[in-house]
Amino acid sequence: MNYYGNAINRLIEELSKLPGVGGKSAQRLAFYIIAMPGERAGALAEAILAAKRDIRYCGQCCNFTDSDSCALCSSARRDADTIMVVEDPRDLAAYERTGEYRGMYHVLHGAISPMNGVGPNELKIKELLARIQRHTPSEVILATNPNVEGEATAMYLGKILKPLDIKVTRIAHGVPVGGDLEFVDQVTLSRALQWRREI
Amino acid sequence: MNYYGNAINRLIEELSKLPGVGGKSAQRLAFYIIAMPGERAGALAEAILAAKRDIRYCGQCCNFTDSDSCALCSSARRDADTIMVVEDPRDLAAYERTGEYRGMYHVLHGAISPMNGVGPNELKIKELLARIQRHTPSEVILATNPNVEGEATAMYLGKILKPLDIKVTRIAHGVPVGGDLEFVDQVTLSRALQWRREI
Repeated sequence: MNYYGNAINRLIEELSKLPGVGGKSAQRLAFYIIAMPGERAGALAEAILAAKRDIRYCGQCCNFTDSDSCALCSSARRDADTIMVVEDPRDLAAYERTGEYRGMYHVLHGAISPMNGVGPNELKIKELLARIQRHTPSEVILATNPNVEGEATAMYLGKILKPLDIKVTRIAHGVPVGGDLEFVDQVTLSRALQWRREI
Repeated sequence: MNYYGNAINRLIEELSKLPGVGGKSAQRLAFYIIAMPGERAGALAEAILAAKRDIRYCGQCCNFTDSDSCALCSSARRDADTIMVVEDPRDLAAYERTGEYRGMYHVLHGAISPMNGVGPNELKIKELLARIQRHTPSEVILATNPNVEGEATAMYLGKILKPLDIKVTRIAHGVPVGGDLEFVDQVTLSRALQWRREI
């Protein structure tokens, strides 16, 4: 039954379509939004519209940006000879937070996943190849996720990049820093053994 | 640092002000919204604005509604001689779902909580008294929450309603149906004993 009026029900319905927002939390969010001052609700709605309107892909690395070239690609302080390929802008942000990497990125916006109907054409791979043709980097680091889809994507990219005579590397598998060995899964343990380094 | 562009950062910031949405989930929601088709993001923004614009308090019971009088107050099939006082429209919906109650409601929009600066004047108590003056019900059922604030509110309302010669009742405390006694807290157990009924 309709206890509150249609405008609330529609808001609850729209909110519950968001990932991780169930019926109960959609209701809670809706009541919170109604109790907000009008200008704050307006700011939220406007932020949604502005993000959709202003955000596009960086012409070079396909990261999200609101200008033609993202902050990283426009920076003169980055090493243009290394490209790290990641699945998602959040992965880029995660590597940036390490403060260790000074090269460029390329964001694929996904990983090859035949189960979900995502093939190489759905990813920003054409853009990567075009970019490499314009300026050949000395190294491409494949930093896709360490799961089935990420590995498949890295293997696929390795196959098409190798013939171009570029050094192609993959981020290391191994035990995470700060963990307890006994809680690390078997596959990771055997990868850590297999990829061991002399010290 | 600004990795993605301002429009995304602003959206993440606005989303993270919502209750129960932390930094990480605000980021996840923002990326989801950017990946949405334009018309779906538009529908979400419009639902937020419409809810703020169209939703007001029912002139009688202070429930949320998008017309002058809410669906329950306009219904001819409800018993106008009983008013159940609840804290929140969601409590009203919870009681409606039981299908047991055929009377009217009054929504306080909160409970007395000196710690949070909420006194009787911040609640829809004036509206309740004005309503009772227009039409005296035979019973007022106090269904505020069974916590400190809800009890304080029920006690306060009891004190001001009793002199008006109206039967004032409080929903029963006791053990919840379907539970195991051993998991019920001590206060509830002693209330259940205290409020026991002859069968």
